[in-house]
Amino acid sequence: MQFAERIDNAITQAIRQGQHPPSPGKLASALHYAVTPGGARIRPTILMSVAAACGDDRPALADAAAAALELIHCASLVHDDLPAFDDADVRRGKPSVHRAFGEPLAVLVGDSLIIMAFDVLARAAGDDAARALQLIRVLSNRTGMPNGICAGQGWESEDEVDLSAYHAAKTGALFMAATQMGALAAGQDAEPWEELGARIGEAFQVADDLRDALYDEETLGKPVGQDDLHGRPNAVTEFGIDGAIARMRDILSGAISSIPKCPGEAHLAKMVNAQAEALTPLKWRAAQASRIPGE
Amino acid sequence: MQFAERIDNAITQAIRQGQHPPSPGKLASALHYAVTPGGARIRPTILMSVAAACGDDRPALADAAAAALELIHCASLVHDDLPAFDDADVRRGKPSVHRAFGEPLAVLVGDSLIIMAFDVLARAAGDDAARALQLIRVLSNRTGMPNGICAGQGWESEDEVDLSAYHAAKTGALFMAATQMGALAAGQDAEPWEELGARIGEAFQVADDLRDALYDEETLGKPVGQDDLHGRPNAVTEFGIDGAIARMRDILSGAISSIPKCPGEAHLAKMVNAQAEALTPLKWRAAQASRIPGE
Repeated sequence: MQFAERIDNAITQAIRQGQHPPSPGKLASALHYAVTPGGARIRPTILMSVAAACGDDRPALADAAAAALELIHCASLVHDDLPAFDDADVRRGKPSVHRAFGEPLAVLVGDSLIIMAFDVLARAAGDDAARALQLIRVLSNRTGMPNGICAGQGWESEDEVDLSAYHAAKTGALFMAATQMGALAAGQDAEPWEELGARIGEAFQVADDLRDALYDEETLGKPVGQDDLHGRPNAVTEFGIDGAIARMRDILSGAISSIPKCPGEAHLAKMVNAQAEALTPLKWRAAQASRIPGE
Repeated sequence: MQFAERIDNAITQAIRQGQHPPSPGKLASALHYAVTPGGARIRPTILMSVAAACGDDRPALADAAAAALELIHCASLVHDDLPAFDDADVRRGKPSVHRAFGEPLAVLVGDSLIIMAFDVLARAAGDDAARALQLIRVLSNRTGMPNGICAGQGWESEDEVDLSAYHAAKTGALFMAATQMGALAAGQDAEPWEELGARIGEAFQVADDLRDALYDEETLGKPVGQDDLHGRPNAVTEFGIDGAIARMRDILSGAISSIPKCPGEAHLAKMVNAQAEALTPLKWRAAQASRIPGE
């Protein structure tokens, strides 16, 4: 089975478990709404790729880890879209959860998806409770305080921002979770895989800054110009468009060099390159090709 | 060490872990603000009492379970107080978290406390990963969808409410978690302890309805009349004040009879009685004493 199919099956199964009757129908529907359509599922795909590169000796645990990570990511989108944060009307080309279901259910969707992520991992333990617990610890570390995406969002309420901690937590955390959980799910050490995740996260942040600067709302399926609006730091503001594109490519080369020795090393390098292509849409490449370097 | 001290130490340790620098200072402060002052810590005290009655052979795990349960309870208070739900200005006699720190940080505090709860359990596993995983599964089941407190809150957005599922999820869930996690932390089966938690939860719901009907905001430290305001079902509306008090006492007798055979059975029965006393403040007892039965 391809990664995309395994990821979607695992997420669908988790959501169905959460909708089991008797359960409040609107919240149950909103759970499904919040995780579909799937989009690129970038984080769980990276997780699966690393698990495969490490031998994937327990596919059920890799599936659960991928689902758990994506559920956390979806939860963060739902809460970040709330009026108190980005006040986003659209997400993935359709009304945001609070626009479609109201604010109370949007808060509860986020909460429920977070809890579901840990539940999915605990359920998938099989006879290897220790491995499932390691996955839970990495996921909680990369999600909560003081290092996870909650901390990343929390930095945006500070007057003085530790930029390195902010970026690592805001965007890097779930990519580090992806590579580390992929390794753990396949029975390998998590630590050597942190750098790959961190670098993919940096590249993704730069790509997001480029998208935010270049695209319109219709193409992107969510509001644009949010960084300027909220005064958040941004690679395009710092380096310009060409500079930001060059920086993204440098970071991805570094990512590939950081891949630890493992059976599927070469294949994994190809995956990172493919992600780089996916992160560099036609419009920028065309824009880059039509310019004289340095102009 | 007394239960209260063990619980407070475990919570303090968890919060400190979540505040470890570099972390966003306001969110770090808000985490501490949200779990103090402790109030009665009823749920973790019940958990500790059950663990003690079952032999408490791994006190570190019971401590972690008690902290995790209280963190989840505090998270639910922070999110329930949000403008989208109860819009409560006060909680435990001081400004609610969103009043003190703003709405974005209140959302993040709730999210962070939920994640911290699972982290605390995973960290405390020691050499018994399987037991920690069982605790995580009970906690996620009693917190998320479709059976936990998120579901309970979700029912309040429905036009047609399954009252039994609503009450079990809204108030019962964390009491069932308390008794079951207490047993699990001490290496016993969870299942026989569900009924005790369910009955304590029912009694607590009736007591809460009485408080809501009888007390003023200053005494209670939170807004009163919320049930009437939100059209939620209420034992006082259904049975009257005397009827509700009688019902609460009946439920607690049932709770005591449901206690499974265990070394500390007699002591645990005393604890349940003590909780019953604590749930029946002077004002009601005086009110009850001054009335002719049936009047």
